[in-house]
Amino acid sequence: MTKLMKNKFFQLASISLISIALTACTATEQAPSTQSQNELRATGDMGVIIERATGQVQIVDHSDQNVVSEIDGLGDLSHASIVYSRDQRFAYVFGRDGGLTKVDLLKDKIANRVIQSGNSIGGAISQDGKLVAVSNYTPGGVKVFDSETLALVANIEATIVPSKGQTKDGQPYRSKVVGLVDAPGNKFVFSLFDSHETWVADFSTGKPVITKFKDIGLFPYDALISGDGRYYIAGLFGEDGMALLDLWHIEKGVTRILKDYGKGEQKLPVYKMPHLEGWAIAGDHAFVPAVGQHKVLVISTKTWQQVAEIPAHSQPIFVMAQPDNRQIWVNFAYPDNNTIQVFNTETFELVNTLTPGPAVLHMEFTPRGEHVWMSVRDNNEVQIYDTQTQTLLKTLKSKSPSGIFFTNRAHQIGL
Amino acid sequence: MTKLMKNKFFQLASISLISIALTACTATEQAPSTQSQNELRATGDMGVIIERATGQVQIVDHSDQNVVSEIDGLGDLSHASIVYSRDQRFAYVFGRDGGLTKVDLLKDKIANRVIQSGNSIGGAISQDGKLVAVSNYTPGGVKVFDSETLALVANIEATIVPSKGQTKDGQPYRSKVVGLVDAPGNKFVFSLFDSHETWVADFSTGKPVITKFKDIGLFPYDALISGDGRYYIAGLFGEDGMALLDLWHIEKGVTRILKDYGKGEQKLPVYKMPHLEGWAIAGDHAFVPAVGQHKVLVISTKTWQQVAEIPAHSQPIFVMAQPDNRQIWVNFAYPDNNTIQVFNTETFELVNTLTPGPAVLHMEFTPRGEHVWMSVRDNNEVQIYDTQTQTLLKTLKSKSPSGIFFTNRAHQIGL
Repeated sequence: MTKLMKNKFFQLASISLISIALTACTATEQAPSTQSQNELRATGDMGVIIERATGQVQIVDHSDQNVVSEIDGLGDLSHASIVYSRDQRFAYVFGRDGGLTKVDLLKDKIANRVIQSGNSIGGAISQDGKLVAVSNYTPGGVKVFDSETLALVANIEATIVPSKGQTKDGQPYRSKVVGLVDAPGNKFVFSLFDSHETWVADFSTGKPVITKFKDIGLFPYDALISGDGRYYIAGLFGEDGMALLDLWHIEKGVTRILKDYGKGEQKLPVYKMPHLEGWAIAGDHAFVPAVGQHKVLVISTKTWQQVAEIPAHSQPIFVMAQPDNRQIWVNFAYPDNNTIQVFNTETFELVNTLTPGPAVLHMEFTPRGEHVWMSVRDNNEVQIYDTQTQTLLKTLKSKSPSGIFFTNRAHQIGL
Repeated sequence: MTKLMKNKFFQLASISLISIALTACTATEQAPSTQSQNELRATGDMGVIIERATGQVQIVDHSDQNVVSEIDGLGDLSHASIVYSRDQRFAYVFGRDGGLTKVDLLKDKIANRVIQSGNSIGGAISQDGKLVAVSNYTPGGVKVFDSETLALVANIEATIVPSKGQTKDGQPYRSKVVGLVDAPGNKFVFSLFDSHETWVADFSTGKPVITKFKDIGLFPYDALISGDGRYYIAGLFGEDGMALLDLWHIEKGVTRILKDYGKGEQKLPVYKMPHLEGWAIAGDHAFVPAVGQHKVLVISTKTWQQVAEIPAHSQPIFVMAQPDNRQIWVNFAYPDNNTIQVFNTETFELVNTLTPGPAVLHMEFTPRGEHVWMSVRDNNEVQIYDTQTQTLLKTLKSKSPSGIFFTNRAHQIGL
């Protein structure tokens, strides 16, 4: 799956300014660490929650279900996402303002921080854990850093788009980069929004070898990779359908799937393009948020054709499978984003409808799936549910929480 | 998948005595910890290697590819296996002598140890991480402990087998228990060798609720559970075929699959029953070690019927899939246990044949699959290979290593 919240680039200028202002206002409120630096701590049951409005993150413990500490000074965290170091000690936080921040979960503090571009949109860590890559809008491209030192290792410049003229600093405009994921063989895969390409950067021999696929479809806006790292699928903003690259057979090139998937001729306004991370794959089926419709689509992973659809409360954003694949959990676009629905993956039946509160933005399952954590942004809280009974277990205070990321992601391809 | 090395109960009496003697001889050789207790350490890239002959374990780091420390005094570790605490700080080591040892990976020492039976054969940790269960031969049953304190929480006594008379201490003989795994919903699932049963113990409400399935097939000797925790499959020592329980539909009971799977009328002597953990599932196929034949069987996970077979070097023991499912790695029974073969899961073609050395007993992949570690027991070493190129990267000294267990197992159902 790809990282959280990579689309919506079209709204960013104004949001960035607001967030920067808020960060400045709260910079004096830094919470003291609640933990001694000498206390032994294992990080396998920890995680980080993005507090987007204040440029802070919370370090949490999902065994004790509490907040361990709060870290300040991470800049603009709208649409921020996180990957973890191989040992699960460090969180790499990809901020909107081009900030790449390395947070130490054992010391409750920032270990390192670089501003690596003017505007970035997520990142990935290599299979061997040695490289952290960031996809950038401004200037368009991918920068790759040493995960230990954050020293720049490679700067992959995106394709120049002559029709877009020059940037403010007089450079030729390069395509925005989206949908960056890691893949087996120490590869990074990403798509170029303005030039309609998907690139594979292979770092297995040290120096990157880049394979470029052109004309993959108009304006790829986000992407996902299957849990085994085989299929890379990019969503298209400029047309219906999606672009599939089988990484086991890159000689076959990019093929088009799900030709009707997209905005098409919608009867309803599309409030938000769904997140592609939300593709839940259970058995032979992928459960996919329909665009602008009150449905979850069921797709065959054999044929990549739609085989069923499930009526839902509103326009789905994330469709996420429990780790045991028994149920999917769905959140929805504004103005219906106070609701969660749970469906059975075998019968497609509705199991439960919950109303956690205003602006349920993200969900994260504990590694073996007994609990799910949800950010309820406009209640300033994170709620923890039992997945089997869908009962609320606990509520934690959090300032405008968005993404929730547990450390077990360190061990999963594409996360 | 189930834990390492649960079969071969029939040879145990003599092996146990030898191992105990060896342990006594080496008890004075305890290696000092090489790490300061105050050094901060994250355990996400660590693991434990069983040194079976000396009752020791090595704590290792798979980023640095080195041995961090060696812990002494774990008793008889023949066929020992390990599960990890939810935070990945503690390894629970299930010894052959009924010893349950809790090893602290942050302090390089034993945190707690109980002798909980006379003869045990593996264990599991519950979905919520609060319970550790051990399956016992003597007395036959399952004991469940608080993972924090190792205090006994439940003692599930196995079925009395009148034909077996009494135990040495005058108690009625109870069936040996094998194939113990955890399953979603805080369940443990296990099989009763002498009474031909599979039981499901549900701990989701605190007090265990036990569901018993009788006449599942003659002498279940080991079992596995699929990665999503849905299918529990027991191998049968007393007849051909296997016993399948669909945990999503326990009302359907146990059904028989793969009716020809087993020793049948073998042309070759069966040197060792294969480990069921070795079932690699990739796409719609399970790759299964044939019993007593020089083949890997390919089974459809839709129909549970054999669809192909792959010629192999000798009688396979473990068939293990890389985390990206691209290749399977196979080791073999004595006297051909110096060899490893690697096959492509898509084409079934042989990729490589390696000869690491005498007695290659176990393999463990790094979490995202770039490397595989192998115990080469009779060379007293562990070898580390690149999975993509199958080249040897490094060799570590280890005393008669058997099982290798990395901490990312903490986050996987059934491991």
